Amino acid sequence: MRMVDLIAKKRDGEALTKEEINFMIEGYTKGEIPDYQMSAMAMALYFQEMTTEERVNLTMAMVDSGDTIDLTGIEGIKVDKHSTGGVGDTTTLILAPLVASVGVPVAKMSGRGLGHTGGTIDKLESFEGFQVELDGKTFNDLVNKNKVAVVGQSGNLTPADKKLYALRDVTATVNSIPLIASSIMSKKIASGADAIVLDVKTGSGAFMENLDDAKALAKAMVAIGNGAGRQTIGVISDMTQPLGFAVGNALEVKEAIDTLKGQGPEDLTELCLTLGSHMVYLAKKAASIDAARTMLEDAITSGHALETFKVFVAGQGGNPDVIDDPSLLPQASIVKEIVADQAGYVQEIIADEVGIGAGMLGAGRMTKESEIDLAVGLVLNKKVGDYVEKGASLVTLHANTENTQEVEDKVRQAYRISDEKPKAGVLIYDVITE
Amino acid sequence: MRMVDLIAKKRDGEALTKEEINFMIEGYTKGEIPDYQMSAMAMALYFQEMTTEERVNLTMAMVDSGDTIDLTGIEGIKVDKHSTGGVGDTTTLILAPLVASVGVPVAKMSGRGLGHTGGTIDKLESFEGFQVELDGKTFNDLVNKNKVAVVGQSGNLTPADKKLYALRDVTATVNSIPLIASSIMSKKIASGADAIVLDVKTGSGAFMENLDDAKALAKAMVAIGNGAGRQTIGVISDMTQPLGFAVGNALEVKEAIDTLKGQGPEDLTELCLTLGSHMVYLAKKAASIDAARTMLEDAITSGHALETFKVFVAGQGGNPDVIDDPSLLPQASIVKEIVADQAGYVQEIIADEVGIGAGMLGAGRMTKESEIDLAVGLVLNKKVGDYVEKGASLVTLHANTENTQEVEDKVRQAYRISDEKPKAGVLIYDVITE
Repeated sequence: MRMVDLIAKKRDGEALTKEEINFMIEGYTKGEIPDYQMSAMAMALYFQEMTTEERVNLTMAMVDSGDTIDLTGIEGIKVDKHSTGGVGDTTTLILAPLVASVGVPVAKMSGRGLGHTGGTIDKLESFEGFQVELDGKTFNDLVNKNKVAVVGQSGNLTPADKKLYALRDVTATVNSIPLIASSIMSKKIASGADAIVLDVKTGSGAFMENLDDAKALAKAMVAIGNGAGRQTIGVISDMTQPLGFAVGNALEVKEAIDTLKGQGPEDLTELCLTLGSHMVYLAKKAASIDAARTMLEDAITSGHALETFKVFVAGQGGNPDVIDDPSLLPQASIVKEIVADQAGYVQEIIADEVGIGAGMLGAGRMTKESEIDLAVGLVLNKKVGDYVEKGASLVTLHANTENTQEVEDKVRQAYRISDEKPKAGVLIYDVITE
Repeated sequence: MRMVDLIAKKRDGEALTKEEINFMIEGYTKGEIPDYQMSAMAMALYFQEMTTEERVNLTMAMVDSGDTIDLTGIEGIKVDKHSTGGVGDTTTLILAPLVASVGVPVAKMSGRGLGHTGGTIDKLESFEGFQVELDGKTFNDLVNKNKVAVVGQSGNLTPADKKLYALRDVTATVNSIPLIASSIMSKKIASGADAIVLDVKTGSGAFMENLDDAKALAKAMVAIGNGAGRQTIGVISDMTQPLGFAVGNALEVKEAIDTLKGQGPEDLTELCLTLGSHMVYLAKKAASIDAARTMLEDAITSGHALETFKVFVAGQGGNPDVIDDPSLLPQASIVKEIVADQAGYVQEIIADEVGIGAGMLGAGRMTKESEIDLAVGLVLNKKVGDYVEKGASLVTLHANTENTQEVEDKVRQAYRISDEKPKAGVLIYDVITE
């Protein structure tokens, strides 16, 4: 078998067999197939379709390229959640204890990653003493005991995907739905998920700005998951403004606590209930989505969800008292308001710009080596549809540096304000099941 | 400027500017742009169009990537000819003295190359003492004196094209008309041509098997040549059977001598007169194509063309007596007939198979290091439309090894024979001038 022939085959629109895909991914992982052939293949894939069978085979070849996490020691159906990424997305922090509180085992592996704010792992480190590195046995035992544990990524998961993603990034082949879908799904499957709930964001702050593209990506991922024997559903959610109010690590932890108490932002709460009820249903802990939702609402009302959060934090060595007293979280030395320079209704909040502003304060990593400041970030006081008086606060800024003028300007510019009251936005556009 | 942005631009179907193309080709030649980006670009180019302006800019960027040959010391309009390659193509050997004999300066650079038989340079070495390496001044002086000289390639012509071609070969991006056209035209322009006559072959033995593809390639090359200020025409000629009778180096030299005497194969003679009359016309040595053709026919009849061949060979140190006595050419030790195993009309002769057969006898190079046997090859005694009796000779085989069974079988299989008389084939399909 020769890679050049496989490139020609795909270039001409033919489907690759499982054996051909395995040859390609194994060879590329081992370095036997050079980058210049793989990048030509990636560009051919950009222009030509991949069948669902090809996508499943590509995904599983990437899973098989490295280590996989064995969660078989954990009782029950392990449901993982994945978000395509947005600004102020605190859902994992809320969903982990929330669905665990109704009996769904949550054995989550999470990354630090690069971005506007830290990953879930960084946010959890806002709890003093929280251990994110656990060996496999401790991890499994914790999930069996507490129903929830979250660890940092370990092992060499999907090295083929890592190598291919880096190549796509420099060859203008990132925006290929089959490649994006296989990349995401390979990581979820390698992490040991039995079933997967996807949160696919759409809007100005999302990777898929356009609703049709978001649906296409969700359908592609759902088809791969189901084709690989992992029941998968995709929720299409809005990212035309940041989710919730908080953008920053400890600030988002506080928001998660509020949400688990039933006092969280409306949009964040609703998205968590939607994603959570699908997770509970896929884990076969409820007979219907509606029944699952009722269970989750009850867990919040009864305080059981918040209690599970405490058990989870304590289980990994963190200080659970923080949950009752969020002032124990890292606090920024400077808190100031960013005020509106005109009165009117908020029409739009460009999520990316808010995210970049939080990143500039130190909430995120610009490079792998950057240190994160857990305390800093932004809290939105006005969201789309709200009316604001001139001079009233749009956003509360939490910083550890005096020089915040640039961030303030950026955040103010992220708000588009005018006289007309905007019509109500949509939070959940669609749920894709096949 | 970043290469990844140029790849994205071309991927999205936009035209690249001259500055962008220069950045890309200069960077690639210097090794600053890696192969993996260039191969992604090549695949994007496979799927997306290039405007004529882009093609001209790409061609000139490749010309500028290396040395160029200065023919300004030679009087008159230097017209080069290029063939896209076929089996038994002896046209250069004939055209060089033929058009020189009517006053067109022929300053040709020719390669050894790889293939079924040697290149023109190899064939000329069938003349004992023939020097293919000449310094620039000697070369120019010879053309001014004799109107014709042919040298081996020297200097570092179009290194960008060489590097890109090698990459395209292993990334399934060879079959891109803009890239093929730019590659060929850059070499011709770097070789110093003022005007160019292209012989684009079509049929089973050609790179462009299909007539439409051949026309598209010819149009693309003509547009680049004219766009770059080099008047260019393209002749579309048939390669559904080998051209002429001889396939092999010294055997083709003998056939060239025959043709210059007016005793050559009909198809080869006709193609040479067609290509030659366009060369003479572009060199402004005749007022019309028809007038040019008459001049060439007269040169053959008068013996002046043959005389020019002698002067040419002698000018480069070769033995001109060979032209009067071709038995002085390298001779194979074994000459045998490959006979028909059935009677009937020849319907088709798969040119490639005949070429491979000649190559197996040692007439061509399989690798750059191979030694060529100038004496060996095949002479076709029957061509398409001829009737052959069972047991009569199809082909005369000239070999220097006893073991020729495999070649005989291959050649016999290249002939398709049946009872029906085929209709007459076409030799020249079209002439593309714009």
